[in-house]
Amino acid sequence: MKKISVGNNVFMYPMPVTLLGVNILGKPNFMTLGWVTRVNANPPMVGCGVGKHHYTPQGFDENKTFSINFPSADMVRKVDYCGLVSGKDIDKSKLFEVFYGDLKTAPMIKECPLSIECRLVKVVQNPTNNFYIGEIAGSYTEEQYLTDGKPDIRKLNPLLLTMMDNRYWTVGEYAGDAWSIGKNVKIG
Amino acid sequence: MKKISVGNNVFMYPMPVTLLGVNILGKPNFMTLGWVTRVNANPPMVGCGVGKHHYTPQGFDENKTFSINFPSADMVRKVDYCGLVSGKDIDKSKLFEVFYGDLKTAPMIKECPLSIECRLVKVVQNPTNNFYIGEIAGSYTEEQYLTDGKPDIRKLNPLLLTMMDNRYWTVGEYAGDAWSIGKNVKIG
Repeated sequence: MKKISVGNNVFMYPMPVTLLGVNILGKPNFMTLGWVTRVNANPPMVGCGVGKHHYTPQGFDENKTFSINFPSADMVRKVDYCGLVSGKDIDKSKLFEVFYGDLKTAPMIKECPLSIECRLVKVVQNPTNNFYIGEIAGSYTEEQYLTDGKPDIRKLNPLLLTMMDNRYWTVGEYAGDAWSIGKNVKIG
Repeated sequence: MKKISVGNNVFMYPMPVTLLGVNILGKPNFMTLGWVTRVNANPPMVGCGVGKHHYTPQGFDENKTFSINFPSADMVRKVDYCGLVSGKDIDKSKLFEVFYGDLKTAPMIKECPLSIECRLVKVVQNPTNNFYIGEIAGSYTEEQYLTDGKPDIRKLNPLLLTMMDNRYWTVGEYAGDAWSIGKNVKIG
């Protein structure tokens, strides 16, 4: 088949849907974040790409801490709302029940099945977005979301995001064991 | 419900499953990559976290170019194989049909519904992994994967990955329009 271009503004298929939490002027603020990934194995570190014009960068500056919260699909309306309105204009601190962990200043969302708190390690300046890299300091989940002691994506039931069509999705079927299903592939 | 810890080694739920392509000594090499995200809006840039002990860093050094390829779920065995064996030991250049775009040295996979080629912009050194940031120089897909001119995740049918349980998943149901479904949320 003939290859064609869809331009340069291509996104990941899919992106995870998370809520990025920071405290600003002592109040929790949450923004919807799909530009997030693990960046380091040991110690465990994550990185997130945040537009410089957002309200959230102020929280990184103030406390050098942040949280990544994984909402379940039934939270989709509140999750989307966090991406629609800025903390500059609307106080989002009462939208969720908030708790704190060891870092004390990284606000986490009680309703989310899984949250991590991170210590800011470095800020990479890109043209329109900052990339905040943090070390994972702690994780918070509930027994009901685990299978064999590990978070079970079927129980977490997280959301996925696609852009440019701007749609949320859920996770589908199991498709195989990683570092296993490809063992018998032969080349050539 | 009581919150409990699952330690510090927490991963994204879920991660996209991509094949990261570089040329090394003139030959294409592909590694399975879940640690990848957009990092900048304009110009469009992506970043990927790659263990320093892998073979792939040599390709970044040689050409300052790379590709991110989105395989479909029916490629799961070959995709997994690319994560099981290192290019140091096995020549993976014949595993897929390879093509090149404008950058000339970023090998892309013809069987993948969507590929992007990137120009390396910066390398962020983290303790065990390098984080390679690149500007998207071009994208390559086929008409059959588009709806209204945009990549359609139902047609791409990509894979997702979860760790620590190490499983692949497919994409499930549509769950709402982003920047839309939360419009009527009221706080308090």
